[in-house]
Amino acid sequence: MNTTTTQSWATQLVECVHFLHQKGFAPATSSNYSFRLPGESKIHISSSGVDKGVFAEEHLMQVDLSGQPINDPRKPSAETLLHTMIYQRLREVGCVLHTHTVYNTTLSAIFEEKKNLRLEGFEVLKGLSGIRTHDTFVDVPVFPNSQDMPALSEAIEAYWNDHPEMKGFLLAGHGLYTWGKNIAEAKRHIEVFEFLFECFYKMHIFKQAQGLGIP
Amino acid sequence: MNTTTTQSWATQLVECVHFLHQKGFAPATSSNYSFRLPGESKIHISSSGVDKGVFAEEHLMQVDLSGQPINDPRKPSAETLLHTMIYQRLREVGCVLHTHTVYNTTLSAIFEEKKNLRLEGFEVLKGLSGIRTHDTFVDVPVFPNSQDMPALSEAIEAYWNDHPEMKGFLLAGHGLYTWGKNIAEAKRHIEVFEFLFECFYKMHIFKQAQGLGIP
Amino acid sequence: MNTTTTQSWATQLVECVHFLHQKGFAPATSSNYSFRLPGESKIHISSSGVDKGVFAEEHLMQVDLSGQPINDPRKPSAETLLHTMIYQRLREVGCVLHTHTVYNTTLSAIFEEKKNLRLEGFEVLKGLSGIRTHDTFVDVPVFPNSQDMPALSEAIEAYWNDHPEMKGFLLAGHGLYTWGKNIAEAKRHIEVFEFLFECFYKMHIFKQAQGLGIP
Amino acid sequence: MNTTTTQSWATQLVECVHFLHQKGFAPATSSNYSFRLPGESKIHISSSGVDKGVFAEEHLMQVDLSGQPINDPRKPSAETLLHTMIYQRLREVGCVLHTHTVYNTTLSAIFEEKKNLRLEGFEVLKGLSGIRTHDTFVDVPVFPNSQDMPALSEAIEAYWNDHPEMKGFLLAGHGLYTWGKNIAEAKRHIEVFEFLFECFYKMHIFKQAQGLGIP
Repeated sequence: MNTTTTQSWATQLVECVHFLHQKGFAPATSSNYSFRLPGESKIHISSSGVDKGVFAEEHLMQVDLSGQPINDPRKPSAETLLHTMIYQRLREVGCVLHTHTVYNTTLSAIFEEKKNLRLEGFEVLKGLSGIRTHDTFVDVPVFPNSQDMPALSEAIEAYWNDHPEMKGFLLAGHGLYTWGKNIAEAKRHIEVFEFLFECFYKMHIFKQAQGLGIP
Repeated sequence: MNTTTTQSWATQLVECVHFLHQKGFAPATSSNYSFRLPGESKIHISSSGVDKGVFAEEHLMQVDLSGQPINDPRKPSAETLLHTMIYQRLREVGCVLHTHTVYNTTLSAIFEEKKNLRLEGFEVLKGLSGIRTHDTFVDVPVFPNSQDMPALSEAIEAYWNDHPEMKGFLLAGHGLYTWGKNIAEAKRHIEVFEFLFECFYKMHIFKQAQGLGIP
Repeated sequence: MNTTTTQSWATQLVECVHFLHQKGFAPATSSNYSFRLPGESKIHISSSGVDKGVFAEEHLMQVDLSGQPINDPRKPSAETLLHTMIYQRLREVGCVLHTHTVYNTTLSAIFEEKKNLRLEGFEVLKGLSGIRTHDTFVDVPVFPNSQDMPALSEAIEAYWNDHPEMKGFLLAGHGLYTWGKNIAEAKRHIEVFEFLFECFYKMHIFKQAQGLGIP
Repeated sequence: MNTTTTQSWATQLVECVHFLHQKGFAPATSSNYSFRLPGESKIHISSSGVDKGVFAEEHLMQVDLSGQPINDPRKPSAETLLHTMIYQRLREVGCVLHTHTVYNTTLSAIFEEKKNLRLEGFEVLKGLSGIRTHDTFVDVPVFPNSQDMPALSEAIEAYWNDHPEMKGFLLAGHGLYTWGKNIAEAKRHIEVFEFLFECFYKMHIFKQAQGLGIP
């Protein structure tokens, strides 16, 4: 891959970050994002602590598959290990996005005990790569939040071994991780999950009202 | 109709798509849209799988009334059959819009069993073509979602035969279809339905609170 | 008042309409707006049926205090009578705004039976002209919606005679009317009412949850 | 500090005010904002009654640490005393922001009786200066709203003496005060609090639904 391609992906990622920030999916300096060009092993990842409203290509840094910076004095985010775990596992992944939204934070906290949130029967599920019908469900596992990234990464991998179809996961009270073969696909997955989280939330609130016989 | 008019309607449809996307009514690559010029039989419809945030006139393709592409190698969306069914039935329809929103998805899933959602007594109903008073109701039927477009189309037509006043319909867990004599009218109908879906939802949630004596 | 002042107020009103439309306070072609220059008797009012997203000065027409068009072949909105009633009653009113929002529509429908919605104890009440402390309440009467404008106007005046401090009123399932001495003040009143309607709604929903012992 | 720095902070504050206004965090003419350059004692604060949508540097005025205007005929807002109280207490504070939002108004009214709102276990808490783990809580005290600023200021200081870790406080039915060493940090604190207020609100509503066995 040459410099032109790297530049093009970096530009796309920056546009994607601004799109997500503008939708309120990344408050303050939260969230982190990365990409890997097809066939390469190094990862371009957002450096820590930048206000995503002013995120620019200069805020991207390169790390290797173990999360070590390549020729860069900046410290990568602690969560870099979750990104590299995903890239190591799936050769075809080209982009990993992690967002904090009101709905993913709220639902991940509520469903921490159940350890899973099931999205079922929605047409928009077809926006997830590999899903061809609405007549299915997608399980989104919820892991307890942790500051211990190696342990957290291990827990996610253990689940993934048993559920190779996993398309994203939640950290309780924290947010969503999802990915795709390129930036457009990962962004589409974010939009699908966030749209369905809000539908899921609103359906349950309404059904509660129904349960008491209102409509 | 000459090229100038086609161009003008295409421009209007693109502006309408961006308006709907910007309001969050068409997440990711979902939703599809079409128009037909007065007196013509061919239909201009959005091709499948385009991110509506970057939708442009080049993403429109022409199909005939049976849904077959006219001089175009692209595959139209499977839902093209629902568009052509509407155009075949009503000679005066010039635009069909189909959106996925949080409220139409949520309510269509909740009301699948009741098969109908009644909007009643709202002033904004007068934004629907042919409605001249708030003191009325509009029934929005809810059909089970299906991948079998001919069967779905048939079910909708059967209902329509009995309810010729139908102004839009919901597919459960999927979204809303509505239409108008031109792009402005179809867009107005979308705005009316979505506004009232949100009012309907919020009224029922609140009445539940009232039922337990809070306000 | 000279042409320059009329022009300046018209420009301000158009900006205000776009602000309200952009916030989703005037879906589709709904809502109507007017102003009257200090010392004049004629009223500049939005003509009927215009999409507020493209509202411009040319969509304003002049009517006299009885609602009759002045040198204009266009038909004013039926609700013009409510505007003129307000201008006739209060010499100092320079602007009347009428909006349809999800919260004012929802609450006006819910509180139709109680005929009143009380906003109490909020700091933001001080944004209403004449209110100097949060430690007070503002009653917003709710009138049944009607197509009979003279009768509706009479009912509002009867209430107003008994409640001269009225700062705005709701029509059930329809929307809010409020006013001010100029466009800035009327716009501020809209913002205050809509902000407090949303707070009021959310407080009641939450208190219901509390009542069952959750937090 | 020279004029260039003052100018730079003023520009940043104006941008911050527009950001907050655009998010709907400062309806109408509500809210007030201030900054103090490192090492200086005078405070630059928004003058009273300005629509924050058109807020500009000329709407800032200077006051001393007792809240008296410095060479300015304009009257500072009554709440200036709360700003000066914060600057007097903490030498490192460079910016104080006070906003009115639907969620902070709603929750402050609901939790007035409990006098405290606890935010616990959220990753986004790490956006508050000094918080290094999600596995903690932040107490936000709720004080009764008052027109008596000296008394209110005294009550807040008394609480602060016992809770030196306080990062923001709510006035019931009124809004949030928070601060930071500079404008960027204070703005980040606003974003964190408002994001978590909305999560907190939505979690409690949902858990209520769960309590009755729906999901």
